[in-house]
Amino acid sequence: MAKQQSRTLSPFQQRWHNIIFEANTPAGKAFDVALLIGILLSVVVVMLESVVTVQLRYERLLTSLEWIFTALFTLEYLFRVWCSYRPGAYMKSFYGVIDLLCILPTYVEFIFGGAHFLLTIRILRLLRIFRIFKLVPFLNESRQLTLALTHSRRKITVFLFFILLMTVVLGSLMYVIESGHNSGFTSIPVSVYWAVVTLTTVGYGDIAPITPLGQAFSAMIMIMGYAIIAVPTGIVTVEMSKLKGEEEVDQRICPHCMREGHDANADYCKYCGTKL
Amino acid sequence: MAKQQSRTLSPFQQRWHNIIFEANTPAGKAFDVALLIGILLSVVVVMLESVVTVQLRYERLLTSLEWIFTALFTLEYLFRVWCSYRPGAYMKSFYGVIDLLCILPTYVEFIFGGAHFLLTIRILRLLRIFRIFKLVPFLNESRQLTLALTHSRRKITVFLFFILLMTVVLGSLMYVIESGHNSGFTSIPVSVYWAVVTLTTVGYGDIAPITPLGQAFSAMIMIMGYAIIAVPTGIVTVEMSKLKGEEEVDQRICPHCMREGHDANADYCKYCGTKL
Amino acid sequence: MAKQQSRTLSPFQQRWHNIIFEANTPAGKAFDVALLIGILLSVVVVMLESVVTVQLRYERLLTSLEWIFTALFTLEYLFRVWCSYRPGAYMKSFYGVIDLLCILPTYVEFIFGGAHFLLTIRILRLLRIFRIFKLVPFLNESRQLTLALTHSRRKITVFLFFILLMTVVLGSLMYVIESGHNSGFTSIPVSVYWAVVTLTTVGYGDIAPITPLGQAFSAMIMIMGYAIIAVPTGIVTVEMSKLKGEEEVDQRICPHCMREGHDANADYCKYCGTKL
Amino acid sequence: MAKQQSRTLSPFQQRWHNIIFEANTPAGKAFDVALLIGILLSVVVVMLESVVTVQLRYERLLTSLEWIFTALFTLEYLFRVWCSYRPGAYMKSFYGVIDLLCILPTYVEFIFGGAHFLLTIRILRLLRIFRIFKLVPFLNESRQLTLALTHSRRKITVFLFFILLMTVVLGSLMYVIESGHNSGFTSIPVSVYWAVVTLTTVGYGDIAPITPLGQAFSAMIMIMGYAIIAVPTGIVTVEMSKLKGEEEVDQRICPHCMREGHDANADYCKYCGTKL
Repeated sequence: MAKQQSRTLSPFQQRWHNIIFEANTPAGKAFDVALLIGILLSVVVVMLESVVTVQLRYERLLTSLEWIFTALFTLEYLFRVWCSYRPGAYMKSFYGVIDLLCILPTYVEFIFGGAHFLLTIRILRLLRIFRIFKLVPFLNESRQLTLALTHSRRKITVFLFFILLMTVVLGSLMYVIESGHNSGFTSIPVSVYWAVVTLTTVGYGDIAPITPLGQAFSAMIMIMGYAIIAVPTGIVTVEMSKLKGEEEVDQRICPHCMREGHDANADYCKYCGTKL
Repeated sequence: MAKQQSRTLSPFQQRWHNIIFEANTPAGKAFDVALLIGILLSVVVVMLESVVTVQLRYERLLTSLEWIFTALFTLEYLFRVWCSYRPGAYMKSFYGVIDLLCILPTYVEFIFGGAHFLLTIRILRLLRIFRIFKLVPFLNESRQLTLALTHSRRKITVFLFFILLMTVVLGSLMYVIESGHNSGFTSIPVSVYWAVVTLTTVGYGDIAPITPLGQAFSAMIMIMGYAIIAVPTGIVTVEMSKLKGEEEVDQRICPHCMREGHDANADYCKYCGTKL
Repeated sequence: MAKQQSRTLSPFQQRWHNIIFEANTPAGKAFDVALLIGILLSVVVVMLESVVTVQLRYERLLTSLEWIFTALFTLEYLFRVWCSYRPGAYMKSFYGVIDLLCILPTYVEFIFGGAHFLLTIRILRLLRIFRIFKLVPFLNESRQLTLALTHSRRKITVFLFFILLMTVVLGSLMYVIESGHNSGFTSIPVSVYWAVVTLTTVGYGDIAPITPLGQAFSAMIMIMGYAIIAVPTGIVTVEMSKLKGEEEVDQRICPHCMREGHDANADYCKYCGTKL
Repeated sequence: MAKQQSRTLSPFQQRWHNIIFEANTPAGKAFDVALLIGILLSVVVVMLESVVTVQLRYERLLTSLEWIFTALFTLEYLFRVWCSYRPGAYMKSFYGVIDLLCILPTYVEFIFGGAHFLLTIRILRLLRIFRIFKLVPFLNESRQLTLALTHSRRKITVFLFFILLMTVVLGSLMYVIESGHNSGFTSIPVSVYWAVVTLTTVGYGDIAPITPLGQAFSAMIMIMGYAIIAVPTGIVTVEMSKLKGEEEVDQRICPHCMREGHDANADYCKYCGTKL
């Protein structure tokens, strides 16, 4: 990315670039705040459209508003591409993809009915809020959280893979035990769904065992799930505590050997003995 | 606060101040114990008022008791203001606001029916219990818990913000999938409510997916939520373990270099070698 | 306890003491194993008595068995008192109280019907299993778990106290919001029960909000509960990790200054410099 | 195992051994990938067989496919035994047992109807996926997870034992309280099942307390369970953080004193001062 050549913008484009992409100037800040408000309003409009009583009374108003918001966001997207230093990079970036996804459903609606309800994905654009309001400490925290989850990515993948295998096996067993006595366990896929609902301790109760053997077996699954739920928590906690340590340590740099990673209470560099 | 001038109280006011605000004298202790009992009784009265069978038989008694308690607590509030060194500071303090909120609902009842049930907020006045009975170790513990939560405030805010965005997106997706087949997912706001119920593993079951696609998608959400629930636990655990460390260490100060942070079992200052 | 004079037992009593209280001799071991089997059987009998279909067919057999087991356990209890070195101490000990509670319900049955179902408390006598089979490592683990919970006792008390106050306030608020629209929230105590069910993420669904405001408010409570559930986990984890540390360290004692608490990898005593 | 003499294979057997047991050669890799696809397909077939609407239309096709897959897997199993260096060791190994269990249900079906649904156990064969695709880091992670769970095995056993005793006692108490008023608590075993559902915070709601006393008692159980759920999490987290430490440390060995356990950033051996 860094080596990619960025194109030259005209002064006009540059002015707009600063307004749209940066939040340093009053105009840029005003634009961003207006954008956030627009996003929130457009999500509220889509939500209200789904409420039957509201929809019946304000159908025309809500549809118009949806089209206006979509038009505005489409315009904004084109503008962003137009005044970007590297349009391709923007379009392929996380925010670029989100920005595009946030206008598509209205158009897709012509082909698949109901698609426009997916416009609520616009709410993800609110993620910009941290950057816009320079909530640096919050940005740091979110970066740390992301880092901890990234570090534990592999462990959690392995864990979820085991859980998946287990739910299939447990669900099938319960299907063999309960089907015929219970109208809930209609097929193995449904029983696997039940196993997921149970192991994650969500427990809707839409499907529940009724045979004594099924209840005994479920109780065993739950108690097992009790110990299993501890695993992802353990993974993330350990990752976070490691991160925490790094964060505390990562502050002083030895003036001589330029290395970091000193304990918070050290007076001398532990690598070369220079006074810190 | 410390620099704010406090007014001079008359000896009569001072005597009452000691009784009402302090718990050192027998009279003060007796007042506080009577107050705690009064609070508990008044909350029980309000609770019983809400039970239809009790309400029908003892309506007059309960209403009278409610008025008596409200009158007493109003009197107590005025007394507290009157014999306080800094009435303004008291009124704006946490306990001052609670004390006021605990008498308002009875009066608001004239305007909004049902408001007097909010009198159960009086139970929050029981928080004074730690101070009154000098449960210092418990006070310490609660201060530590509060501290750990305060330290992890920002991380938890960021986390809850993501959760909020996610529930809106997931809820909308489920609405598109399930509505039309399922009488539960009546609108996007309701579907968002369902997403919250599911992600937090509460799982009432008042709304549950019934289409195969909806069940498969819910299962994915739950397994995801399984890993996500680990995040706040990780945050708080790490904060607490840091605190724990500080608490153990924070006790001795080197008589020579005046620095603290020694290990609990150290005999000599690790910064200057002085005997601790 | 240690200073308390223990009475002298006759050789006959002493022999029985060894059989009943100790598990070193073959006779003692046989007695203990027979006891464990008896306990399990008697619990199964009580459980079967509660199953209507079984009860109808085998009423006489089950009632007889219950009486036989109660008679045997009563005899055993009297024997234990009789051949104990300090009968008073035994009777007041944890196991002594359990042993008594395990025979009482059959007799109490004459006064309160249904009391004999409480005989399942006998299952607690299985706790002896660790001692009988000399499962020392398991005993150690259970001692550690108990220790960790004991250490976090105060923090958890404070935490549960806050949770209690919160459920009362939240339950009342939900009662004001939902009652009148929802047949579930019939009174404040029931609403408090709902708040507990929700905050602990159990979520039966027997009572669930139906008004939009109620659902929105519940969603907030759940998300809050999401962060709150992290607190006890954090408390216990930190306590356990401290214990873990002690456990690793607690092994070597300095031959010179007789102090312990050395790091696992230390070669010299950190208090006096003696080679460990 | 290591000392056990392995038999000599003919070149023909050896070639097949490499194809079936190893994934280094193109043929071996192709075999393994085909196997994974076959496993997935056969599980999907079994799942579809359980869905009534699908079963009605494609019964013949699905039954044929099931028999074909079973035949193939039986052949594969015999081949594995035939070209194994130590057939006995393979048959007694984890994968050998799974491989056998994955073909049995089709044959058992003749004796017990419905048994063939247990064929979904085949999904466990997917565990080979890590080895086949040389997902070494994932293998490491899964080994670590297994290690953490193995280390905490005893603590979790003790914990689950207590939970079991507790659910029996709590279930019986609730049976005494609720039975007669509530059609859910039909017997003590069912009430124990309810106690497990509640303590693990699954909370189906198929059985829920309705008497005031029962609700109050349940609320207490839930709040208690709130603190209890912290215990396994604490156990696993502590085990994992210990492991984590070992993992970081366990890498360099002092060339002089041959000891390990150095900090990741140490330059000199802390036992003998040799440059690492």
